[in-house]
Amino acid sequence: MPIALMGAFAAAIATSASANEGQWQPHQLPQLKAELKKIGITIPAEKLADLSKHPMSAIVSTGGCSASFVSPDGLIVTNHHCGYAAIQRNSTPEHNYIANGYLAKDRASELPGGPTLNVYVTDKVENVTDRVLKGLSPSMTGKAYHAAVESRIKQLVAECETDKAYRCSVPAFHRGLEYYRIRQMMIRDVRLVYAPANSVGDFGGDIDNYEFPRHVGDFSFLRAYVGKDGRPADYSPDNVPLKTKDFLVVSAEGLKKGDPILLAGYPGRTSRYKLASEIRYARDVNYPARVAELRADLDTIGASTKDSKANEVRYASVVKSLNNVMKKTQGLLDGFARKDIAAIKDEQEADFRAWMDKNPSAAPKTIVADMNALIKQDMVLQDEELGYAVATNSDLLKSARLLYRLALERKKPNAERESGYQDRDLSFIKARLTRLEQSFEPSVDQARWTASMQRYAKMAPSMHPQGVDVLLPAAEAIPVMFQQTELADTAKRLAWMDKDAAAFETSNDPFIKLAVRMMPTSMALEERRNEIDGNLERAVPQYMAAVIAWKKAQGKPVYPDANSTLRVTYGTVDSYSPKDGITKGPFTTVEGILEKHTGKEPFDAPQNLRDAIKAKRYGVFKDPVLGTVPVDFLSSADTTGGNSGSAVMNKRGELVGLNFDSTYESITKDWYFDPVITRAIHVDIRYMLWVMKEIDHADNLLKEMTIKYPRK
Amino acid sequence: MPIALMGAFAAAIATSASANEGQWQPHQLPQLKAELKKIGITIPAEKLADLSKHPMSAIVSTGGCSASFVSPDGLIVTNHHCGYAAIQRNSTPEHNYIANGYLAKDRASELPGGPTLNVYVTDKVENVTDRVLKGLSPSMTGKAYHAAVESRIKQLVAECETDKAYRCSVPAFHRGLEYYRIRQMMIRDVRLVYAPANSVGDFGGDIDNYEFPRHVGDFSFLRAYVGKDGRPADYSPDNVPLKTKDFLVVSAEGLKKGDPILLAGYPGRTSRYKLASEIRYARDVNYPARVAELRADLDTIGASTKDSKANEVRYASVVKSLNNVMKKTQGLLDGFARKDIAAIKDEQEADFRAWMDKNPSAAPKTIVADMNALIKQDMVLQDEELGYAVATNSDLLKSARLLYRLALERKKPNAERESGYQDRDLSFIKARLTRLEQSFEPSVDQARWTASMQRYAKMAPSMHPQGVDVLLPAAEAIPVMFQQTELADTAKRLAWMDKDAAAFETSNDPFIKLAVRMMPTSMALEERRNEIDGNLERAVPQYMAAVIAWKKAQGKPVYPDANSTLRVTYGTVDSYSPKDGITKGPFTTVEGILEKHTGKEPFDAPQNLRDAIKAKRYGVFKDPVLGTVPVDFLSSADTTGGNSGSAVMNKRGELVGLNFDSTYESITKDWYFDPVITRAIHVDIRYMLWVMKEIDHADNLLKEMTIKYPRK
Repeated sequence: MPIALMGAFAAAIATSASANEGQWQPHQLPQLKAELKKIGITIPAEKLADLSKHPMSAIVSTGGCSASFVSPDGLIVTNHHCGYAAIQRNSTPEHNYIANGYLAKDRASELPGGPTLNVYVTDKVENVTDRVLKGLSPSMTGKAYHAAVESRIKQLVAECETDKAYRCSVPAFHRGLEYYRIRQMMIRDVRLVYAPANSVGDFGGDIDNYEFPRHVGDFSFLRAYVGKDGRPADYSPDNVPLKTKDFLVVSAEGLKKGDPILLAGYPGRTSRYKLASEIRYARDVNYPARVAELRADLDTIGASTKDSKANEVRYASVVKSLNNVMKKTQGLLDGFARKDIAAIKDEQEADFRAWMDKNPSAAPKTIVADMNALIKQDMVLQDEELGYAVATNSDLLKSARLLYRLALERKKPNAERESGYQDRDLSFIKARLTRLEQSFEPSVDQARWTASMQRYAKMAPSMHPQGVDVLLPAAEAIPVMFQQTELADTAKRLAWMDKDAAAFETSNDPFIKLAVRMMPTSMALEERRNEIDGNLERAVPQYMAAVIAWKKAQGKPVYPDANSTLRVTYGTVDSYSPKDGITKGPFTTVEGILEKHTGKEPFDAPQNLRDAIKAKRYGVFKDPVLGTVPVDFLSSADTTGGNSGSAVMNKRGELVGLNFDSTYESITKDWYFDPVITRAIHVDIRYMLWVMKEIDHADNLLKEMTIKYPRK
Repeated sequence: MPIALMGAFAAAIATSASANEGQWQPHQLPQLKAELKKIGITIPAEKLADLSKHPMSAIVSTGGCSASFVSPDGLIVTNHHCGYAAIQRNSTPEHNYIANGYLAKDRASELPGGPTLNVYVTDKVENVTDRVLKGLSPSMTGKAYHAAVESRIKQLVAECETDKAYRCSVPAFHRGLEYYRIRQMMIRDVRLVYAPANSVGDFGGDIDNYEFPRHVGDFSFLRAYVGKDGRPADYSPDNVPLKTKDFLVVSAEGLKKGDPILLAGYPGRTSRYKLASEIRYARDVNYPARVAELRADLDTIGASTKDSKANEVRYASVVKSLNNVMKKTQGLLDGFARKDIAAIKDEQEADFRAWMDKNPSAAPKTIVADMNALIKQDMVLQDEELGYAVATNSDLLKSARLLYRLALERKKPNAERESGYQDRDLSFIKARLTRLEQSFEPSVDQARWTASMQRYAKMAPSMHPQGVDVLLPAAEAIPVMFQQTELADTAKRLAWMDKDAAAFETSNDPFIKLAVRMMPTSMALEERRNEIDGNLERAVPQYMAAVIAWKKAQGKPVYPDANSTLRVTYGTVDSYSPKDGITKGPFTTVEGILEKHTGKEPFDAPQNLRDAIKAKRYGVFKDPVLGTVPVDFLSSADTTGGNSGSAVMNKRGELVGLNFDSTYESITKDWYFDPVITRAIHVDIRYMLWVMKEIDHADNLLKEMTIKYPRK
């Protein structure tokens, strides 16, 4: 480090530099050559940078999760919780694949994953910053700026999607400093090949979520199918497995503490470059309010489903998801309480300003002050947006608003419609409106909305958007609305997708009527959001450019915040200390399953698995140091939501595990990466292979994959 | 190991052999020479065997705790909780030494510890087995055998205590195979020299009891005073510090993971040689009943003290003690549930029987069967004894029974009285009856007894000793008993110590009356107890002799169960894994105090201590590996209750810490030593010295001790 830094920020930088922060765009990896070599990665950085080459061309996305090809015939491995919808969809009381797991012994037995399960293979990434930003007038309003950017992006997407085999997007990087167009082949026929029993694949369930030690076999296998022409196609029994040009080799040799790993996948969203003021708002205002809301909503769902097993099952995935968000948000608050990240950011910002004083050309002198002024407006609006979300917390109302908005947008030519309401989005809207069927019950929705409106009524006036309160129905009117609406019926709900705005405006359906009356308020909020976002989109990139220059002066590359695009991170297999005197990990072992087993869900390991452990039938999967089969392990890699199912590779790029979670103490990493406590949790490939061989006898898959076994 | 063993028992033996099981009589240590050398102990085993030599002559007892001399002027170090009574006794609302700690800056300021605080210095240990057992007829009844043994022991004690400076005892070793007469100089003037604040000395309080990570500075300093003639004397301002012939040198160099330790002290009681049937009875019957009783009694105390701060304080030490017993008993049950120790004992017994078949002369062939027959009787009696204890759970009733029994015993010549009621015991009885004053309140005692009798009424008939039920008062009679009794008054209670049996038999005090009426039942139970104990005392030694021969054939020495006599154990500084994926220890650090600090008792570290940690004023006490000051640490040494305050010494016999607890998972060690999870918890000498220097400025004591500081 040529530059001497002082104070706490210097310490933060110093540790950060020696640790594994960074969700890197593949093309950035050659900049990290020395670092990769230092930790022991032997696969050349240049090779990792090339999406058309092994191993990156084997890394895919399922939309919300990451996955990878593991055979030349389109076999895909991802997490159990990522393949869950496909398992659930095929599961019946007679064939309970959730409880018992499922193994297709041949191709014909592989089960359709349904229209919501797609696989995306990134094949082209172009820097289109110029085409998005060039020539935009600096004097435009925020709203106009935002609209111009959106319009150019839509144009870029439209010209990329002329081939219907592809799905394109133009996400912003570095908060709008750069834009890349990403082209992904979208495979629409994805089938369930193999999933272990839920008591393996979700062992520990919600109780163990974000926790370590962990003992879950969070993996499943899917297969990509295409038409006989080799191109993506809707499901058809005539489709054939995709001939994969690349796939990962599996190494059953495993890892030990200190070994380097590479991790490739699609991290969703991080906020690493936010200002101290934004952290304080989240910490002191927004997140506590959100956690309180989530808790109250979960209580309502619990109370209104507790007398019906059917309703409880119906809302199980909603509850799981709300619980996950609540635990994550609470984890961020706990992390903020443990470490004063805002104060660290204060120091960083002071150092940045000091550097700016010496490098005035890097950005306008007032850039941080300008951003803070915008952020203040943003906070005011966020308060109202949260209030609005609480006031309208009904699945039926949300459906009505979505449908009416679609009808309004449809008045415009396709290219001019708001993103999310274009023809390319219709299948997703349909899927969303259909899926409600499985996770909705009018009585529960009514209870949630009634309770939400009561909480909304008690919120501070600053959280009530103008004009909303008078539109909301009185509590006694709500039961009648639920009696009179037809939106609870899936077919009738879907039928509204084809109706025009006039049909909505003359409808007597109480939810449609309310959606129509609420539209001006919704649009007013949206326009304010666009104005603020547009202004931020213009200001923040100037700040980010200066930050990058500042870091460059320190010899440090800068990675952009996660945005659901393909990234590579690296680290080492490592334990951590959550508290003084306690060390966790890096490995758990199959013996820990017996320790946790109670016989009651979610700690109900299958009998045959327990028998195999008790008999020490470890086979070749026995770790020489641990003396048994490892289950899950920790690494210092930098991950976030979306990285579920990401390939964990050894130094040679061979598959040695799957990422599926991170520890509770790590949750703060979405805002601030603390190398001392941040650990991602992976399932060890040896446990996966051991379960496949000893428990589920998935010999066909073991044969299909290329597996390097340890030398005897 | 010359003998090949098979099965699980072989495994148990194998690990046990490589670990640090054993609470050895000092004279046994030369048998362990090779083992001590192997782990790195350099002080010769022969030296450790000699109680008159350094370091063993520096090791003392406080009755319930262990301690050691650390200066030539009688300075003693022990745990904070061992010196607590002395601190409490001198503490007033104006001079709150409990909360603030106390430091005598000169000898004149050292505070009297009161008549219940004594220090015992073991100076002579003689094998008196022959004198206890020789010539006892094998055809005696159990009761007669027991009486004969007791009588010989009393004789041995009486002839040893002709010099009033000494207290003697003749405890059984190996469950009655051997008897040793122990002579201890009893120092009656012990003064409080220094104790840190309670928020250091009891940091973590009951919440952290039996837990790790631990951050408690559980130490205090006392001083032994004697008359000007150098002999023990009652407290007098004219007394002078004891000139100690030996004391421990303190090493501030500390230890690191893997270093050997020696630990010397007075462990109370273990049950390592019990049979499988005894474990099953404890596990399935006796302990669950005890835990339920303790929980119910604690609930009653809680409910009946909750409206009075004064009563809460009065019962605080009772609650602490009951909680401690409950946690320990529950810990044993949890340990039995975790590991099937009875099954391990089954295998050991089978192996033992197989060996016996080949070595029939070692003991009667039927020895195990004979013992099991006796144990069956013992279980029946234990049930009744527990029922009786519950039925009579009143401090006033217990006092009345004790006093009446004393009056009855006093009819006999001193030498013939039951042990515990001889002249030598009077001061202890008086202290016990006096101490009640501080931990008793009639309304609470009434509530406890009423609730206990209700529980007793619901107990199985087998737990109701014959004749008891008709004696117990009806619930409505109890309040009247408490109104009419005079035993709640300390002076009046003590006055009964001098009355004769006739006075009791004609008294109208309702508790005295009940005690008189209950005496035949008490005596009947006691006689059955003596009969069974006598029979066991005769049978078990034959079994133990065979066990010792069996172990000897395997090349293994055998240590006797703990019996509050001086023992030495050894081990290494080591971490452990309480659960798969988690490692605890070996060290905690001062930073952990900041982590645990909430500002609320028992996690309320003093401001100056926190400031020193934040400022990293570690001084010479900084550990080179940890980079900070260690607080507590774990070792694999074999300890139990009574080992509190035991000197933890390095390989050269220098003081490096004090034992004060063991981990929750270790609790089962009282019945079965599992080397994988058994860890004792010690306070690190470096933390003690750091607190003395940086926080409490106890420079006078630092100067008085001989301290080896680490080389710079």
